[in-house]
Amino acid sequence: MPWTLPLVPAGTPAGELAAGQDGTTIRRSVLPGGVRVLTETMPGQRSATVGAWVGVGSRDETDGHFGSTHFLEHLLFKGTARRSAMDIAEAFDAVGGEANAATGKEHTCYYARVLDSDLPMAVDVITDMVTSARLDPDELETERGVILEELAMNDDDPTDVVHEEFSAAVLAGHALGRPIGGTPATITAVPRDAVWEHYRWHYRPETLVVAAAGGVDHDALCAQVASALTDGGWDLDPAGVPRARRDVADVVGVGLEGVELTVRRTVEQANVIIGGTGLSATDERRFTLSVLSAVLGGGMSSRLFQEIREKRGLAYSTYSFASGHGGVGTFGLYAGCAPSKVDQVTTLLSDELEKLAHGGITDAELERSVGQLSGGLVLGLEDSGSRMSRLGKSELVYGELLSVEESLERIRAVTSHDVQKLAGELASRPRSTVRVGPFGD
Amino acid sequence: MPWTLPLVPAGTPAGELAAGQDGTTIRRSVLPGGVRVLTETMPGQRSATVGAWVGVGSRDETDGHFGSTHFLEHLLFKGTARRSAMDIAEAFDAVGGEANAATGKEHTCYYARVLDSDLPMAVDVITDMVTSARLDPDELETERGVILEELAMNDDDPTDVVHEEFSAAVLAGHALGRPIGGTPATITAVPRDAVWEHYRWHYRPETLVVAAAGGVDHDALCAQVASALTDGGWDLDPAGVPRARRDVADVVGVGLEGVELTVRRTVEQANVIIGGTGLSATDERRFTLSVLSAVLGGGMSSRLFQEIREKRGLAYSTYSFASGHGGVGTFGLYAGCAPSKVDQVTTLLSDELEKLAHGGITDAELERSVGQLSGGLVLGLEDSGSRMSRLGKSELVYGELLSVEESLERIRAVTSHDVQKLAGELASRPRSTVRVGPFGD
Repeated sequence: MPWTLPLVPAGTPAGELAAGQDGTTIRRSVLPGGVRVLTETMPGQRSATVGAWVGVGSRDETDGHFGSTHFLEHLLFKGTARRSAMDIAEAFDAVGGEANAATGKEHTCYYARVLDSDLPMAVDVITDMVTSARLDPDELETERGVILEELAMNDDDPTDVVHEEFSAAVLAGHALGRPIGGTPATITAVPRDAVWEHYRWHYRPETLVVAAAGGVDHDALCAQVASALTDGGWDLDPAGVPRARRDVADVVGVGLEGVELTVRRTVEQANVIIGGTGLSATDERRFTLSVLSAVLGGGMSSRLFQEIREKRGLAYSTYSFASGHGGVGTFGLYAGCAPSKVDQVTTLLSDELEKLAHGGITDAELERSVGQLSGGLVLGLEDSGSRMSRLGKSELVYGELLSVEESLERIRAVTSHDVQKLAGELASRPRSTVRVGPFGD
Repeated sequence: MPWTLPLVPAGTPAGELAAGQDGTTIRRSVLPGGVRVLTETMPGQRSATVGAWVGVGSRDETDGHFGSTHFLEHLLFKGTARRSAMDIAEAFDAVGGEANAATGKEHTCYYARVLDSDLPMAVDVITDMVTSARLDPDELETERGVILEELAMNDDDPTDVVHEEFSAAVLAGHALGRPIGGTPATITAVPRDAVWEHYRWHYRPETLVVAAAGGVDHDALCAQVASALTDGGWDLDPAGVPRARRDVADVVGVGLEGVELTVRRTVEQANVIIGGTGLSATDERRFTLSVLSAVLGGGMSSRLFQEIREKRGLAYSTYSFASGHGGVGTFGLYAGCAPSKVDQVTTLLSDELEKLAHGGITDAELERSVGQLSGGLVLGLEDSGSRMSRLGKSELVYGELLSVEESLERIRAVTSHDVQKLAGELASRPRSTVRVGPFGD
């Protein structure tokens, strides 16, 4: 049964919103202050994953605060008013839990996967980090070095580099085009005051979404979150409401120019991506794009895999990918190949996109890709981590939570005509080409 | 209740060997020909993972056949007597399954994760690949290019390189020291005849272990495997027995010399590993080594993480690791840091190993690491893939399958004295240091 998340008034006890898949139960509450809590209880699971999502990412950084989002992600683990960095580390290690965080372009998530009996501990530590991080100046300077090493590590991975540069090229001129993790220059330059401001401005009841899946009790979690946030000094105003979704009107004009970019690296392989803008995260055609990308470059039977790897042996890795943000997205075709073959491979990538635009897909390809996406959807939701993530994104990215059955229905509703039409539109957009490799050395 | 795998006579119907964890059931049968089938049925799981393990890896390659194991792994996907490469790809893609293979030093595994209703299809395709690969000469030449690109991709990852070089340095002179995937030279040189011989010699009933976990029926799987192997032309001799475990006497003398190695790469970071030989896969002290490695470099609260990352900000990634093979293993300490800090970091890695050897661990560290390993063990067995893998390795690597409770008991039995004694032994062994980075440029 399709359903979308109703906006429950703050403080209203939440009912059961919908049966999840395989007997799971999904519930959503809005606590005082506008704090959102979503849970998916999975019977029989011994683990639980909880995530504190803050609806703020690198896109939201203002001048003078570049790099703050990622810096903050690190600093929340470096100590709070009542816990040292070692206390935080020990809490999760002692129970064999996995705790980590991820910074995105539009949100930041602090999460932990633990045995269900350890969930209250995980919620206690994570809410403490979200409300009461110290941002100690000495710790901050030490962590600056750690982040610079993280950026250096990423920069040493040519596949990372080509994806980062492609996103920057297509979304050039917009905040979404800036690298999520910052750059060595912004991380070196950003002062503590700016990071502190970013924390105070954005880590607030109305931006916070707590999502949990697995062996979790919804009412107990809501009570614990409300109590912990209050203990952490947050004022949970009974009249508070969730922050409105971000205005995405500023993306007008993004991606109107194709870019040709070559990045030199002393490596064995060339990494190449061609593509341009794709679809925004909430575009209804995203299901069509899933089918399109599955046929084009989504598996061993896809066109890119067959034409570039199986028939010609030119690459080990080749695929298509899509990334959706508020108001805009990117769509690209990737391959890693011998530098001497990069022109041939770039032409093949481009040819396959054109063929899809002009020739469409076969009925067999449509059927296979629908089966692929349907099976993958179900297989991808067996663990508590992926279900927690689905809840968080439904709230912050999509503004609706589709049941598995409703997602399957939308996938099954895609036609060959839809795919060809979208391929035609994507192929007609300004095309960028980014290459990373030993060129000109 | 501790138990080990009984060697059931070929053809004997298998009983229930032991209750698994959380209501799972584990069973083992030896089919005619010596084919072993192990299953762990997990109630309520909609997915199943099946793996065909061949007890042969890069260690078993003889002169003139170097690279054959990895080459063969690729070629099994390139077509059989009754399926083209595209047929194989389509079969898994059409149901959203994940199919892949992994070559190791001592075994090769072909596996698929699918919805349980698709398990018979997955078994049909994988057994076909194992018995009836064509190794078509033209396909083989095309695939040679794909494998060379795979090796180039790995060579462009400095973290991969430092681990590969460390293993090669410590195990120098032994077949285990050769890279699993082959080298550009061996992959370029190996002729089809050698790969074909390797296939015929080693892919046989007595080396094959079929392991499956999730929504799987043991008796149905045994019947299907026996029938499919016979259809594939294998002679399942009722008197056949599993191949004896490999003789590991040839490791005497391995790792007796420490090596200092610097590999130049034009990258931002230095990657460094120090270490030497560790423990063989079946050494009873492997549980002690787990505790030792957890305390030294196994999490955010570990000594390496605290000393190198948290206190000094010198690295983003630092940890210890152990790898066990038949008769011998390796143990190392890793960090990625700025090239200018590599001497300081190398000294810190070395100091922490010495401190453990001379000062031992605290009671709090022992307690925390036991909690960490116990929680991690349970959390790590929630999906059908990890359980399938545990079954396969129990048969081929350990020769016994410990219940989760028995594994927990062995972890809990480790004492601080055991850890310090083992640390002393490891620290006294010949020490190798391998660095990858922009040195001497």
